[in-house]
Amino acid sequence: MQDFPEEGVLFEDLTPVLADAHAFNAVVEDLSETCRKLGADLIGGLDARGFLLGSAVAFNMGLGILAIRKRGKLPPPVHTEEYELEYGTAALEVPAETDVAGKNVVLVDDVLATGGTLVAARNLLEKIGANVIGNVVVLEVEGLGGREKLAGAPLVVVSHQDS
Amino acid sequence: MQDFPEEGVLFEDLTPVLADAHAFNAVVEDLSETCRKLGADLIGGLDARGFLLGSAVAFNMGLGILAIRKRGKLPPPVHTEEYELEYGTAALEVPAETDVAGKNVVLVDDVLATGGTLVAARNLLEKIGANVIGNVVVLEVEGLGGREKLAGAPLVVVSHQDS
Repeated sequence: MQDFPEEGVLFEDLTPVLADAHAFNAVVEDLSETCRKLGADLIGGLDARGFLLGSAVAFNMGLGILAIRKRGKLPPPVHTEEYELEYGTAALEVPAETDVAGKNVVLVDDVLATGGTLVAARNLLEKIGANVIGNVVVLEVEGLGGREKLAGAPLVVVSHQDS
Repeated sequence: MQDFPEEGVLFEDLTPVLADAHAFNAVVEDLSETCRKLGADLIGGLDARGFLLGSAVAFNMGLGILAIRKRGKLPPPVHTEEYELEYGTAALEVPAETDVAGKNVVLVDDVLATGGTLVAARNLLEKIGANVIGNVVVLEVEGLGGREKLAGAPLVVVSHQDS
């Protein structure tokens, strides 16, 4: 969808896909296979749509899901990473007690656009000792520089087409 | 945690629990068993913390996950239900194309407080023809009237204690 939430912004909405049992299962299996190959031992889910995928992937793999929250959603104390979005500024947070030192984390989100949120999530987790070993998304909006911004950790786009 | 996000509000944060593989798995299995017994054929997850549980439960049960979004998160057209929170007003939305007529939906969230969001979600889905057959949460904050407000559809509190 064009021009949502602001003019010039392309918005891909996976909500109907996830509500379909067959499509949801297929997407989660594809994402899980990718995360397995990358060697994840913890899944990082991006608030909020990344939760819808990351949670099922983590469960499917027998791992935990680390919810990477938007600013103000967690009770303090927290670790915070500020960043700029295409339509404003934002920050990501995890609880201060989060123990991810030495963990191999794969970040899961639905759509890669500018990559700003994924980069901020990676910076946040690496600041507290995690190894962010990959970024996995279902869809990529090309031409926004997201892929280039994520250079340094593998990006996998799992574009599932229902057969 | 007391007084977050506003004074007098008790905030239960499950983030660390979900990041722990063993605890996350146990919570999701408990929730899934409950949703199975209720007869769910679609899981409704409440934005955003309900996504972290509902998604894994839906996947585990071979169902779809219907993301019930906060206002402004979905591209229009949408179905909307407005409601009051303990700290302000809000609205829930699903895509206008959502087809849940005749479906037996169980709503999943992390914490039951006043119940306002769960009631709004139920009203929203019933307006478009779904049967909301239960509300399942991990924790209940007692004394806020949530349980009473949800009268009409079963409430199950799955308070997992790690053994």
